Order: sequence, then C-alpha cells, then structure tokens
Amino acid sequence: MAHRIGKGTILCDTPPAVAAWASVVGRREREGPLGALFDLAEDDAAFGQPTWEKSESELVRRTMALLLEKSGKTADELDCVLAGDLLNQCVAATYGLRSFGIPVLGLYSACSTISEGLALGALLCDGGAADCLAATASSHFCSAERQYRSPLEYGGVRPPTAQWTATACGAYLLTKRGGPPYVRAVTPGTIEDLGIDDQNNMGAAMAPAAAGTLRRFFADTRLAPADFDAIVTGDLGSIGSALLLSLAEEAGLSLGGRYSDCGVLLFDPARQDVHAGGSGAGCSSAVLAARFLPELQSGRLQNVLFLATGALLSPTTVQQKETIPAISHLVWLSHEGGPFCGGKEAQR
Amino acid sequence: MAHRIGKGTILCDTPPAVAAWASVVGRREREGPLGALFDLAEDDAAFGQPTWEKSESELVRRTMALLLEKSGKTADELDCVLAGDLLNQCVAATYGLRSFGIPVLGLYSACSTISEGLALGALLCDGGAADCLAATASSHFCSAERQYRSPLEYGGVRPPTAQWTATACGAYLLTKRGGPPYVRAVTPGTIEDLGIDDQNNMGAAMAPAAAGTLRRFFADTRLAPADFDAIVTGDLGSIGSALLLSLAEEAGLSLGGRYSDCGVLLFDPARQDVHAGGSGAGCSSAVLAARFLPELQSGRLQNVLFLATGALLSPTTVQQKETIPAISHLVWLSHEGGPFCGGKEAQR
Repeated sequence: MAHRIGKGTILCDTPPAVAAWASVVGRREREGPLGALFDLAEDDAAFGQPTWEKSESELVRRTMALLLEKSGKTADELDCVLAGDLLNQCVAATYGLRSFGIPVLGLYSACSTISEGLALGALLCDGGAADCLAATASSHFCSAERQYRSPLEYGGVRPPTAQWTATACGAYLLTKRGGPPYVRAVTPGTIEDLGIDDQNNMGAAMAPAAAGTLRRFFADTRLAPADFDAIVTGDLGSIGSALLLSLAEEAGLSLGGRYSDCGVLLFDPARQDVHAGGSGAGCSSAVLAARFLPELQSGRLQNVLFLATGALLSPTTVQQKETIPAISHLVWLSHEGGPFCGGKEAQR
Repeated sequence: MAHRIGKGTILCDTPPAVAAWASVVGRREREGPLGALFDLAEDDAAFGQPTWEKSESELVRRTMALLLEKSGKTADELDCVLAGDLLNQCVAATYGLRSFGIPVLGLYSACSTISEGLALGALLCDGGAADCLAATASSHFCSAERQYRSPLEYGGVRPPTAQWTATACGAYLLTKRGGPPYVRAVTPGTIEDLGIDDQNNMGAAMAPAAAGTLRRFFADTRLAPADFDAIVTGDLGSIGSALLLSLAEEAGLSLGGRYSDCGVLLFDPARQDVHAGGSGAGCSSAVLAARFLPELQSGRLQNVLFLATGALLSPTTVQQKETIPAISHLVWLSHEGGPFCGGKEAQR
C-alpha cells in the first residue's frame, strides 16, 4: 500500500525496486561526456528507417527489447508498460511498442514523462496492481525538430536559450521484489505557468514547476536537500538550471553542489554546439538510467531526487500566443528499501 | 490493495467509488437521443473563445468546475487529476486544467483515454496512493477536424464509414469511500493492429482491440457476458460495433442484447447526418456519465463493462501509409462494492 502525506507526496510502504534499466542514444549523445555509460549508441540517425517518426519508434523498440534482455524477462511477464513521447498522438511509443503484446498505458507529460511513468509505476506495484512493469520515454532530434520547429532542411537559426532535443530513450523495469535501488516516494507535479511565452526558452518556463514540486516534497516530508546525495532535474539546461537554483534559494532550499540537470550533463558545451543544453523526453530518461541508477544500485549514491521537467506547449498554442505551462513530477530513488518513517510521518 | 488474476485483469480488493460525475456537450450532442441527460449543453461551438483549441480547453475547465460543484469538493481536496484528449501534446487538458492547481497526470490513449483514467484512478485509490481524484477526457469536433483531417472551411466530403467527433467532455470523481457505484476490476488493453489503414474507418480498426480485451477479461474472471446488464464500448460506431459483435461471437462470446456503443447512442442517424456515428475521447466520456452512471448508482443497472476504444494513429502516420494500431481498456463498474471472489478467484 501507499499513503499520502502533506500536500501531495505519496510514500511507498513497501518501496518497489527498479530491477533493471536500459538506455539507447544517438551519435551526438555518445560523443558527449556520458557517452560511455549508455548501453547502446546508434550512429545512423535514421535507425534504418525511412522516416524520422519510424526512427524514433525503432529507438523505443530497441530500448524495450534491451530492457527485456538485460532483465531476463519475457514480454509476457510484464503486467504493463507506461509509455510516452513528444510526438503528436505519442506515435513513437505506440508504434515502438506495437510488436510486444504488453498492455500499454499511454502517458503524456512532455519531457516529464519518465518521471510520471516511474511514479505511476511505483504506485501500481506498491498498491498490488502489478508485480512487474516497465516505464519508458523517448525523443529524437529529427522528429522533434520538424514537428515543433521547422523541417531540418530549412536550417532555422536557434537562439542561445534554445536547447537541443536528445535522440535518446530510457526504459525501466519496476518490480515488487528485488532491488536496490527502490522508489520510496513520489510527488506528482502541478501545472505552473508564470507567463513565459518564448518557446526557445523552455528552461525558464519549466524551472518554476521544478521549484514548486521540490518545495512541496520538502514541506511534506520535512526533509532537506542535505538529506540527498543528488537532486537531478530533467532538462532545464543551463539557463533553467540557474533559474531553479535561485527560485529554490528564495524558498529557503539550498540545493548547492548536489544539484545537477540531465540536459546539462548530456553534452559538453565546449565541444558540442547545443546552446543551452539537451532536452527532450528521452534526455532525462536515458541520463537517469546511465548516470545515476548504477550508483544507486551499488550504494555509492544513497538517495537521489529525480524531477524530469516538461513544457506542456504545442506548436499550435505557440502560434496562438499562449504562455507555456510546465510540470515536474518527482521520484525519490534510494539504495534503501525500507518505508520512510521520518519527517512529518513521525509526528502524526 | 489490488491484485492481478489471469493474463491481465486487476481486481480491486476494496473497490473505489465513483462518487460524482459531470458531462458537458455541444449543441449537436444535445439534439441527439441522450440530449436531456447531459448536465450542461453549450450552443456556442466556440465556448466564447477565439480559437477551437481554446474552446476545447474551456469545455474541459467547465466540466471540471461542474464536477467539483456537484461533488461539493474543492480543488485542494483532490489528490490528482488523470486527464487527456486528442489534440497534439494534449493541450486541451493542460490549458483547461491549468487554473485548478491540482497535480495532473497526463494520459494519452486516444478515444480510450477515459477508460485508462478510470482504470488508473481506481488502482491508485485501491492501492492507497489517493483518497480522492478525478479523471477526465474531452474532444471537440472543430479542433479535431482541422487537426486530423482538414480545416472546416475546406468542406471535405466524408465517406459513409467516417464518424463524427463529439464535442463533449466527461469528468469523474473517484474516492476510497462512498458509492455506489464502484470500480471492481480493470483490464488494461494491448495494442492491436490487424492492418486497417483507412483513417475514415476507425471503427473497423478499433473493434479487434475491444474484442481482445473482452476475451481476456472473460478468460481471467471466468465470467460470461450474461453476468452483465450492459457491455458498452467507446466509439466503434455502427460499422465497428457490427464487427465487434461478430469477432466476439467467433470467440464464443455472445454479447447479444446487452451490447451498446457510445458512438451509436449519442446521435440519431435518422435525424443527424453523422455517418457511422459519434467518436472522440469526449464521446464515451460524456455518454458513460450521462447515460450509465445514474442507473448504476440507483441499482437499475447492477454490472456494466465499459471499454472505451482508441485508434492510436496520427495524421503523420497516415501520410506515411502506416496501419492503425488500436487499444481498448476495460473498466468493470458495479452497483455492488464487495471484492470479486468468483470465477478463477474461487478456484485458486
């Protein structure tokens, strides 16, 4: 069973395990600082497919196949997969998962999708609904670029605040037994909209959502940033990350040296021309798997807060001069599998 | 707690209640056979907004506001809302829910979204993660038409197999306590693709998904169609419904007189030119609320199987000559709130 505390944090009474994970990326991601950590990298941006949408579906398919292979599970053993991506009608996930025959629960939370998947997945396992399920989220530079901005052939110029959509996919297996690591708690995000309307500055649009979710989590649990080895956001990039640090500071939360962002970690700005950093639903999904989960498993990292961040715009809402709402779901990953009984809990 | 039986049906050990529901529709839907049953109908297709996308967001906002009003709840009392729609990047839900401040878990399952929301919502309540949450799904004829097909001004001719996207939204409040009615079990759908590639015949693309989920539910529970007062699909329309009946018959399931389809129920083909019937994520979402839940509450209906059906295509996949995958999630709604102990359960 799970139970809620405070204004919206849900504790897992029997924290489910993250029993396996897989990450597949493109060439540019392999050439970045984390390149050697990903399970697979594909030099062919098309993944052998005739269209970019099919390329992204193939990326999803390969990542799920690898997750099954690494975990020694067959598709039949999975109760369901929670999946989403950035494409219209989430077709990367749909077509990528079509051949597996696993029940699919489709998610849309922009670049916060993998947080939503891990959060819902953990709650389904802890609540008895599933023994074993997967969560996945993907993005592909070429399919995202032509859908959200302009066709690649157009060669649009990008402002310095723009981020580079990662070609990447991460997939996770959550189980009732197993571990470490474990999911101890989740905080679903609320929609925050502070009036940013520049689609080339999504880091700024998303930072308030991450700050809001962090504030709620720390208030609910009565924990502090110092209780965590790492606090990792999804893809705020360099501009959004700086903004988050100051928003957190204003709220009395000093994230300090334990803070990092998947969009910042993925590329090396000195060598790679990605402007404000990486983005895309696959960015945080692959970086969490490659960079953080092995250390949570080994115990080198004991407690990590992971908050993928999503900008909930569409090209149509941009054309219609809407501002950009954002959301950030939080997942507390831990080397420890016991229920959390500190903070507010202890005082009830 | 919940627990899984058979190949993928999940039983709620303490079935959560559907404590309240709300439905808002447009003029054409009000003029149909169920017109008097909807809570509100708006004659202005624009819902007072300057663009169709904003119209649909306003439809969502009004339906959620009405749900809160009918249930006597404030937004603060809701743990989360599970929401989705058909628009690119699900912006109807995002912008419609932006002002409420409730944590949002975004879903995409095309026209099966409300089934997914009710299923996940019931499992979150039963598993302890939520005491009170909402699920909602919407569609709007004008926003869907220009996004999936052509601008309204183009006046495209529709073949007889085409369906009419309903302007409609339904919203539901699920709670750990309360009822009747209750959610006793759910069966998440798998992706089925039998090779249909005609986007104007989505009923045919979706019927196999509904048939597959029904087969699994009956095999898992060892129940039969005769154990239910009504078996209701989402929006197969007249052509998909006929196909489902024959697919079910082939599988030894005689749905007979207890079968109906929300897309067929919504409009009167003799008076309303909607070709094969209604469709859209809001169609089944509003029809379930208006037509079936009051009778499940009163006890006139004891047990209803509800399977919204979704075609997981996008305009891009159609242009790329892909076939149309479909999905159908099942929710067992009951006047009775006890755990299900019959069928396979009894024999374990």
